[in-house]
Amino acid sequence: MQRVLSRQLPTHIGTPVRIAGWVHRRRLLKSVAFLILRDATGLAQVVVTDPATRAQVEQLTEESAVEVTGTPVAEPAAPAGVELTAPRVRLLGAPAVPPPFDLYRPTLTASLPTQLDHAAVALRHPTRAAALRISAAAVAGFRATLDGQGFTEVHTPKIVSSSTESGATVFALDYFGRPAYLAQSPQFYKQLMVGVLERVYEVGPVFRAEPHDTVRHLAQYTSLDAELGFVADHRDVMAVLRDTLAGMLGEVSVRAGAALAALGRTVPSVPAEIPALHFTEALAVAGAPDDEPDLAPAHERAVGEWAARQHGSDFVFVTGYPMAKRPFYTHPDPARPAYSNGFDLLFRGVELVTGGQRLHRYDDYLAALAARGEPVGAYAGYLDGFRHGMPPHGGFAIGLERLVARLVGATNVREVTAFPRDLHRLTP
Amino acid sequence: MQRVLSRQLPTHIGTPVRIAGWVHRRRLLKSVAFLILRDATGLAQVVVTDPATRAQVEQLTEESAVEVTGTPVAEPAAPAGVELTAPRVRLLGAPAVPPPFDLYRPTLTASLPTQLDHAAVALRHPTRAAALRISAAAVAGFRATLDGQGFTEVHTPKIVSSSTESGATVFALDYFGRPAYLAQSPQFYKQLMVGVLERVYEVGPVFRAEPHDTVRHLAQYTSLDAELGFVADHRDVMAVLRDTLAGMLGEVSVRAGAALAALGRTVPSVPAEIPALHFTEALAVAGAPDDEPDLAPAHERAVGEWAARQHGSDFVFVTGYPMAKRPFYTHPDPARPAYSNGFDLLFRGVELVTGGQRLHRYDDYLAALAARGEPVGAYAGYLDGFRHGMPPHGGFAIGLERLVARLVGATNVREVTAFPRDLHRLTP
Repeated sequence: MQRVLSRQLPTHIGTPVRIAGWVHRRRLLKSVAFLILRDATGLAQVVVTDPATRAQVEQLTEESAVEVTGTPVAEPAAPAGVELTAPRVRLLGAPAVPPPFDLYRPTLTASLPTQLDHAAVALRHPTRAAALRISAAAVAGFRATLDGQGFTEVHTPKIVSSSTESGATVFALDYFGRPAYLAQSPQFYKQLMVGVLERVYEVGPVFRAEPHDTVRHLAQYTSLDAELGFVADHRDVMAVLRDTLAGMLGEVSVRAGAALAALGRTVPSVPAEIPALHFTEALAVAGAPDDEPDLAPAHERAVGEWAARQHGSDFVFVTGYPMAKRPFYTHPDPARPAYSNGFDLLFRGVELVTGGQRLHRYDDYLAALAARGEPVGAYAGYLDGFRHGMPPHGGFAIGLERLVARLVGATNVREVTAFPRDLHRLTP
Repeated sequence: MQRVLSRQLPTHIGTPVRIAGWVHRRRLLKSVAFLILRDATGLAQVVVTDPATRAQVEQLTEESAVEVTGTPVAEPAAPAGVELTAPRVRLLGAPAVPPPFDLYRPTLTASLPTQLDHAAVALRHPTRAAALRISAAAVAGFRATLDGQGFTEVHTPKIVSSSTESGATVFALDYFGRPAYLAQSPQFYKQLMVGVLERVYEVGPVFRAEPHDTVRHLAQYTSLDAELGFVADHRDVMAVLRDTLAGMLGEVSVRAGAALAALGRTVPSVPAEIPALHFTEALAVAGAPDDEPDLAPAHERAVGEWAARQHGSDFVFVTGYPMAKRPFYTHPDPARPAYSNGFDLLFRGVELVTGGQRLHRYDDYLAALAARGEPVGAYAGYLDGFRHGMPPHGGFAIGLERLVARLVGATNVREVTAFPRDLHRLTP
């Protein structure tokens, strides 16, 4: 008998079926017992009246993997309006040792460290699993949008000979007797691949050895990187980012709408054109002095409120950040060289994505590094590619866990990461 | 004026357009000059008769990034039957330093080490770029097939506290003062995620510190991993693998058919049911003694010939490898416990994919590790998940670079890898 998923039960009323999953909960009443089975698509209620089967169900433990054959009948009070009657239950594998917290309660009451210590079971809780499904849907939308705009997926080295942007926060490793580092970002490689494929993206792990024990930092996170050539300036990049974000959120609705609804969240809407403020305008909107070198969190909140008030938008671009605050590969604004062609995208007043136009001339790289007192040698392999004809280009990077945390309303990125790595955590 | 791609030129005959790309080649004849421009979609021929523009084109170097405005006219002898006339040429960025090898010749004549030393330019050669496009298409097909079969994409840790399968071939790193390792595979994590999402896949880097200097080994490669729960045995896994492979090759045809054709290759066809031989049958087919513990390359070739001869198939499964030759997490054949529920998929007589059913009972893991004299402690965080109810499950892993090398007929996996990492190579 072919297995049926819990979600499919309403279309099998009256016909014997086989379902399989985990013992989510049991309710042992006097005249009847209920077994709630959980599978990848939801919950199914099984009604047990037969004494032998009841004795078997009484022996079961929560989280044991089981299969149940029985006949679905309509029952308005059951999940999806159907319950399985006259069941036969078979244990798959060994009886489960009950987990250290109850997975059947609406929320996980265990502390986050306890959940993370027992991630393999904690993630089974529907709220935790929902975040993983939303994450997968967002990534699918990222790829689908960029595939549709002529981008090609690439896979770049995660072991590199020098740090990407600064030496302070990299993991060092022994590479066949030579010093090497884990890549902090695919920045240089995606730029070089613009010279090959014009438009590229990569979804992959990046590594930051930052000794920050905060709700926002992970030692490994998933970076969604895109880079495109033959741009006029950063505004072409912003247009692709706008479409990408809309595609990601659209795919979350399509693929993970139920997961989002289970968390009581809705998908924010992305305007056809996201409002944009120049950095100097953003300072004015925030009531900050016009010589501030960067936006403080309070300024970002003020800009977010401006976008909501003036444009009804949850999103707002800030462009033209001062060059001094951006990485050395950032392209300056030709009209105002102290300001950059770099941008941040804010979501409800907090930075969500960073991007911009990059330098594309070899000599400009040499000058930028010299101006910062950085040695050219560490970047030699990267810079060499720029000697052989690179078009104007730019791109952006989205931190997947931070994005998903914002979508589901999690305060800690660890809540939306399957097996987080941080300053203190290397297992499980 | 909106940019037009070279591939789109035939639909713009007679209307002025703007194209952009790299100077692929120049031909300076007496009365006319030709500039061949390369963009992401192919080549475009530009005809130059105007003396000022000709002088400009004479100054250009190959690989410089340029944009050209002009009017497309039909010309049967030109690429795609069209050429751009009355052009105006504008240099984008700086003139290119000519690369150390000619990119416009049909094949790259530079040695592979030279190509790899200058990967950022070598990859621009249409044959090298074609392999990257085929690779991206294959991965897209992997995901699309599994998405359609209820799988969810996951992202798992690449920094782990102990080695996955054996301690000999891992990269060690310093993790905030503690010893840690780069993950050799997502094996344990994908298994644990079966307990959460039932069916999962991951596309990501894996790391092997193997000191092998061969045409098949990379220190980092892209692994396409899938794992599914509630299987009867390994045959359910083989069925998913068959569909996945067909989906991957189908997507290569759809998305990268031109790239494959440019390399003179065709996509092999995957039979609706891939023929399968038990290990003991495979030995007999190969004429090997029936006490051989494994298949030698000559045996695999013989099995491949058998599949072609008897079934007209490029693909063949070998099932039931002896347990002694498979990893400790492999599930034995209940009827013949010396043989496993593990399989290899051979393509034209060479192993392409490995997979199988895994152990799912905690006690079976303890027994398997004890039988191999391996300490349980190193696997504690992994094994704990198996105490809390795991269904029968299995999966497979496809090495992306090896698959693409086979598809394009490359003898060395480095030919199809953007920036390979190996025993000797850490840059670019």
